[in-house]
Amino acid sequence: MSRRAVVLLSGGMDSAVCLHAAHAEGFELYPLSFRYGQRHHLELQAAQAIVATLPVARWLILDLPLDQIGGSSLTDPDSIPSKTGPVSGIPSTYVPARNTIFLSLALGWAETLQAAHIFIGVNAVDYSGYPDCRPAFVEAFTTLANLATREGVSNHPFAIRAPLQHLSKAEIIRLGLGLGVDFSLTRSCYDPTPHGLACGACDACRLRLAGFQAAGVPDPIRYARS
Amino acid sequence: MSRRAVVLLSGGMDSAVCLHAAHAEGFELYPLSFRYGQRHHLELQAAQAIVATLPVARWLILDLPLDQIGGSSLTDPDSIPSKTGPVSGIPSTYVPARNTIFLSLALGWAETLQAAHIFIGVNAVDYSGYPDCRPAFVEAFTTLANLATREGVSNHPFAIRAPLQHLSKAEIIRLGLGLGVDFSLTRSCYDPTPHGLACGACDACRLRLAGFQAAGVPDPIRYARS
Repeated sequence: MSRRAVVLLSGGMDSAVCLHAAHAEGFELYPLSFRYGQRHHLELQAAQAIVATLPVARWLILDLPLDQIGGSSLTDPDSIPSKTGPVSGIPSTYVPARNTIFLSLALGWAETLQAAHIFIGVNAVDYSGYPDCRPAFVEAFTTLANLATREGVSNHPFAIRAPLQHLSKAEIIRLGLGLGVDFSLTRSCYDPTPHGLACGACDACRLRLAGFQAAGVPDPIRYARS
Repeated sequence: MSRRAVVLLSGGMDSAVCLHAAHAEGFELYPLSFRYGQRHHLELQAAQAIVATLPVARWLILDLPLDQIGGSSLTDPDSIPSKTGPVSGIPSTYVPARNTIFLSLALGWAETLQAAHIFIGVNAVDYSGYPDCRPAFVEAFTTLANLATREGVSNHPFAIRAPLQHLSKAEIIRLGLGLGVDFSLTRSCYDPTPHGLACGACDACRLRLAGFQAAGVPDPIRYARS
């Protein structure tokens, strides 16, 4: 295996920090993004801007027809809930098995690349709501990865790296600032305006704004309202 | 959860027997197939013919760009090895993390459908060569499925069903004949002729032919040579 890392990159804050963290560890970077029937493609534009700030070996974007599977307000035509706080339980923006699907494809690419490390930006804030962001999920996927693959059977090399796992949003922001992340390039909003401004009201915007406030630094992106 | 089952359906013998097995257990059937950069689409035609023989609730075909990930002779432009016996070790037709990717998407669809059972036709013949056909892999995916999903967290309902797991090809054929599988509709060849005949020489053809011979029944499909 090599000093290559596959890094799941959505264009949001967390995956941007993850990509920088992998770079800081000296990995050759292979970011992986998805077009999966999202309601907007602004996050892929953000991913492109983030990729441009680092020496990336190859950026791969895969098309995934998750809208055909359904089950989520992120891929279904009904609207995103907004103006509510993060709800108790699992939000309607949950996409069934999304991180399992993303990590599976990352694993396939990683095996082809001989990359033992796969980075994912799951964290403590997310795993209060999404089951596939919890430490137990990451551990179970690591076990699976080393059973499911040719490389895994031979050497058990695969590590699912979740460097933000136990961090709050404020801690992620401070870590990112230390690593040189340009947060003005990142996108978090589930429901941006037609002009691409963050709504300031959806769960993702509210978590982001609260994180910057707690970190004591201004959020450099523009909001329609906040 | 419901009496629905998602069944991975390739158009080969094993998945056809799996679909009939799920039907025999009384499940409402949701077969799932993939276009994943295969060198030929004959297997999807076979899947269609198989689907037509059973009361299927919905057949979903998802496009997956596995050719962009590479790492396999099944999706890469280089040729399929033939005229050799099943090689020792893992064949070049291995697709990195394929069953992990297929099961992940099946899991997402199953959660949306409230289907607790996911059928996959892995078996003893395959798992001598492919790591993601082994019982340990199936068990690890089951654990993951019940950690990765909203339904899993609440109720731990998901079962990955591999009814052919410990069967030889001859036993699968006998089981299928008992369930009413029309094997003339199934395809196994990795390298069919331009007219759609099975080559009779690739690993998949050789395993299939040996299975019918051991079962003591003729293989109803036509071969270019055998």
